[in-house]
Parts: sequence; C-alpha cells; structure tokens
Amino acid sequence: MEEEKDIRLRFMKRAAQLAHYAAENGYGGPFGAVVVKDGEIIGEGFNRVTSSNDPTAHAEIEAIRSACNTLKSFQLSGCEIYSSCEPCPMCMGAIYWARPVRLYYGASRYDAAQAGFDDEFIYRELALPDHLRKIQVIHLPSTDSADAFEYWKLLENKTKY
Amino acid sequence: MEEEKDIRLRFMKRAAQLAHYAAENGYGGPFGAVVVKDGEIIGEGFNRVTSSNDPTAHAEIEAIRSACNTLKSFQLSGCEIYSSCEPCPMCMGAIYWARPVRLYYGASRYDAAQAGFDDEFIYRELALPDHLRKIQVIHLPSTDSADAFEYWKLLENKTKY
Repeated sequence: MEEEKDIRLRFMKRAAQLAHYAAENGYGGPFGAVVVKDGEIIGEGFNRVTSSNDPTAHAEIEAIRSACNTLKSFQLSGCEIYSSCEPCPMCMGAIYWARPVRLYYGASRYDAAQAGFDDEFIYRELALPDHLRKIQVIHLPSTDSADAFEYWKLLENKTKY
Repeated sequence: MEEEKDIRLRFMKRAAQLAHYAAENGYGGPFGAVVVKDGEIIGEGFNRVTSSNDPTAHAEIEAIRSACNTLKSFQLSGCEIYSSCEPCPMCMGAIYWARPVRLYYGASRYDAAQAGFDDEFIYRELALPDHLRKIQVIHLPSTDSADAFEYWKLLENKTKY
C-alpha cells in the first residue's frame, strides 16, 4: 500500500508542476492536471485562460481533451484524473461527462478561494434557483428547442453519450 | 416590449436551429447556443461531443470559445447567451467564468433527462459530499499543490480572471 500511495503522489506532483509552470510562464492561473491509464500519463493540461482568451481553458478541461485525443474516444473509461486543485463546477461537470473511474485532487476549493478564485462561489450559485443567481438566468421556452429533442428521440443510428 | 421579446425569440430560434443541425448531421447531441452583443451574434456553437471525441464540446462551451475569440477577451462583458437547453453544470460553470450579463435557455434540464442526457444527474452529484458520489473523488493533499497557490499569491504582474 505504501508503494501505491507513492505512485499517486508522483502523479499529483506532476499535476502541481504543471500548475507552477502555468503561473510562472504567464499562461494562466496555478492549476495543473494529468489523466492516467494503466499507470501511464495519457493526457496533461494546465490553465491557459488569460493567455488564450478562453475562459474554459482550465487544467482539467485541457487534460481531458488531450487524453480523449490520445484514446480517440469521448470517454475516459478505466482512467484516473489527478488535479492540483479540487475541480470547479465546470471541470467537475466535464469529469462526469468523461466518466473516469476516479479523481484525486490536491488543494481544496477553499484554498482556491483564498488565492482569489471563484470556485466556491460558483458551487454556491449552481445550488440556487434561477431567480436568486448573480447572473440573470431566464427560462424562455420555445417550440423550436422542444422540437430538437423530439427529433433526437426519434432519430435512429445515433451515438449516445 | 413585444418587439423585444420577438428579438429574443429570434436568437432562441437560431440556437434551436444549431441544435437540430448537430443532431441531423451526426455531430453530437441536439444542443445549440449563440452569444449576442449589442443585438448581433458574435459566437455560435453546437454539440460536437461524439464526432470530435471531446466530452467538453458542448454547444455553450463552443459558443463561448467562439465569442471570446471574436472579442479577443476571456470575458463576455455586456453579452447575452441563448442556449437551446438549460446548460449542464459544466456549461453553467463556464458561463460563470465568462461572466455574460444574462442567459436565456429554451428546454429545461428535465426535458434533457427525458431525452437521455445526464444534466440533472450531474446537478444532483455536485451537491453531494465527495464520499457519496458515483465517481470516486479523493482528497490527496500535497505540499506541491499548496506551493503553487503560495507562488501565485506572491506573484506580481499577474492577470487575474
């Protein structure tokens, strides 16, 4: 078991190295992540939000996209993700869609908040009903948007995900 | 006011068109989104998850990245997002990071669930503590991941987001 823990700390160390790299080189915030399958790293990512003008370029999103590209699959079956910090709701959502076996994270969302990042704020917002949120969220039902789902339900030969 | 509502329905119709397009042409699920600034569409997106092997390629993520590229900014200040369906937690998180003024959505997360999509399931999972989740989530604190935040806090000339 001690050996197993050492391996996990080695992957966490790599995630943290990527976090440090992103901050040191001006790519974005101090966040890094790796995706591991069968004891090998198959995807890496670090935060590139400010340098690439992409608010979605978080470390976990980048690492998931990289690993999915390696596997030529939209699922991370049998994989583990190591993130230097507890994923924000965006990244946690991405992890659920990618469906790895497990996630290890280093620092917590509270550590992130102390460093000036909104993760914990967004977790609280997502638990609120639309009308109490800081960003205005308005339900505008339309027959067009309903029709797209009806089309999907009847569609044959579709790839589910 | 009637005219204002018509304009909103026009943008929602475009989002729904993109949703239908994604499903009809095998790009992915039936989801579309547009980003609007000053009455003009500045970014569009549709679901490309299965065709691009990218579980993060949801309509809203694609539209946000497209609009940020148009604006050369990692923030969608003064913008509105129209989505054919209530965003999943990943996309809602992305919207909080992009910070538009407001979001309009057509179908709800419950409509999405009825069409076979995990949105509502993921909302419930994110509200649970780590040990009750369907994907194993393990806190593995390390000095390395803490150090990356300490480095960030002391860093001068950093771009916050």
